[in-house]
Amino acid sequence: MRDVCVIGLGLIGGSVLRAAAAAGRTVWGATTAAGDAEAALADGFDASTDVVAALRRAADRDALVVLAVPLTAVEEVLRTVGECAPSCLLTDVTSVKTGVVTAARAFAPQARFAAGHPMAGTAESGWRAGTATLFRGAAWVVCVEDDTDLAAWAEVARFAIDLGAHVVPLTAARHDEAVARISHLPHLLAAVLAAVGADGGPVALALAAGSYTDGTRVAATRPDLVRAMTEGNREALLPVLDEALGRLGAMRGSLASTGGLAVSINSGHEGAQALASARQATLSGVRVALDAPDARNGLRALGERGGRITALADGTAIGEVP
Amino acid sequence: MRDVCVIGLGLIGGSVLRAAAAAGRTVWGATTAAGDAEAALADGFDASTDVVAALRRAADRDALVVLAVPLTAVEEVLRTVGECAPSCLLTDVTSVKTGVVTAARAFAPQARFAAGHPMAGTAESGWRAGTATLFRGAAWVVCVEDDTDLAAWAEVARFAIDLGAHVVPLTAARHDEAVARISHLPHLLAAVLAAVGADGGPVALALAAGSYTDGTRVAATRPDLVRAMTEGNREALLPVLDEALGRLGAMRGSLASTGGLAVSINSGHEGAQALASARQATLSGVRVALDAPDARNGLRALGERGGRITALADGTAIGEVP
Repeated sequence: MRDVCVIGLGLIGGSVLRAAAAAGRTVWGATTAAGDAEAALADGFDASTDVVAALRRAADRDALVVLAVPLTAVEEVLRTVGECAPSCLLTDVTSVKTGVVTAARAFAPQARFAAGHPMAGTAESGWRAGTATLFRGAAWVVCVEDDTDLAAWAEVARFAIDLGAHVVPLTAARHDEAVARISHLPHLLAAVLAAVGADGGPVALALAAGSYTDGTRVAATRPDLVRAMTEGNREALLPVLDEALGRLGAMRGSLASTGGLAVSINSGHEGAQALASARQATLSGVRVALDAPDARNGLRALGERGGRITALADGTAIGEVP
Repeated sequence: MRDVCVIGLGLIGGSVLRAAAAAGRTVWGATTAAGDAEAALADGFDASTDVVAALRRAADRDALVVLAVPLTAVEEVLRTVGECAPSCLLTDVTSVKTGVVTAARAFAPQARFAAGHPMAGTAESGWRAGTATLFRGAAWVVCVEDDTDLAAWAEVARFAIDLGAHVVPLTAARHDEAVARISHLPHLLAAVLAAVGADGGPVALALAAGSYTDGTRVAATRPDLVRAMTEGNREALLPVLDEALGRLGAMRGSLASTGGLAVSINSGHEGAQALASARQATLSGVRVALDAPDARNGLRALGERGGRITALADGTAIGEVP
């Protein structure tokens, strides 16, 4: 098994380091956040604050490099990768993908790169919030662009599966559009709700129960992390925000005029049922031969249908679709 | 201990019936929903579909009558109370209070009435969703109007405390304004999110993780129940919806213009911190003598400060405030 070098040791990077070690990989990490490096060292992991040395070691050992730095730091770290480990096998775990794909082409053009994003996290952050089991059962997007090296893609996908996740192959653009809906909009609506609730003063907070606690949970996330992902996905997020504004405005209009909210509330209920159905769907097995001429389209079509890759063997991606 | 008659045996009424029985009360229930009555009977409770007979028995025994019917049915049931048990000790557990207070004055004017609302529930509904422990640790608003009979108020409050809740004394109007923020708006935002997420198709639902699951959980609630509470609280909900629209629109404007969301996201984070602080606050003991001339103001002031009543003894409400 290929060695692994993790740059960034916060919640996600720290969990990658732990999970890779638990999966039997030789793994080391580096971060410019001294507190995280110290905490990882104290927990018995091979960690330092020397990103350059970590990347040079990765180049020597032909290790898989995993970038787990905040989105705002990706470009700078990619430049360092381009200097210190220019042809390495490379992936990242940041929450917006089109910008990273573009930056990787610009700053680490020789790297064997497949962009990634594990759909896992908590409202916590930093090394201490991480666990070796964070990715179990999670979807992990590994992007398939027209120029993606499928051998690199397969190694990154196998790594995600080794860490307990299943892999969803998508273009970066489709990923960004989907996460605007199911990750970035939830953060913005949680922020709206938390602010409107707190504006109600002690009475409102004293009465807050399940619906409010659930609806505001992710508003406790570190603001700079929420800003990085939402501001970093501006192009895909704006039309999704407009959809949400349109729906909320329609509710306001209906309540003020007829007083009836049936259409809006039924749409939400249908959406909740669609999620439940998707999660309970019966899945059928599929295989995509990675050396086929249309392999990229095959992988992306599987992702588009809500499918997943669960294993890789003999040049074939083995998965299931609803 | 006074007997208890529960009208309506869904999630809340069924939980009141179970919890009152567990607290040692003699309790019977009635509902026009035959399935709930049969299920309650099968579980060994004294339940029927004869609301009139249940109320006549309550009048005979001078029982506490708890109305746990859907908000849209309250007026009709109050008429029946006015006919069958006109001077009973009466409360309700519906989620909007000003309309119920007005209807009780009109249709059961002789009843010793204190309106109530336990802040507990799940996305489930019906008898089978109820539990004897639903109210443990929950806030239970018992309304204090200028014409509220404080002896009736104290009995209703003691009942809520016997069921494991703590009591928040508020006017119906203040209750309705607060729940618009922390219960009705969460349901509407969950409906918006569930609809926008589902519009993203199988890809979006396949990637949905914690933030989306949390943010859409209550969109699974039966739509007629959500309609009843939101449409029934129209007056208080409209300005709160406008606040939410204003905040979401400001996010949209910032993202489209400067691209920065710092102000909005920080406001949400501060709101989340305010909730955490309110829940961790150190509380000081207070007492309100119920025979004092300003007892109603004293109770309401305690509620306004985020305080709670936890016991009643010797004509005194014993509580705590942050």
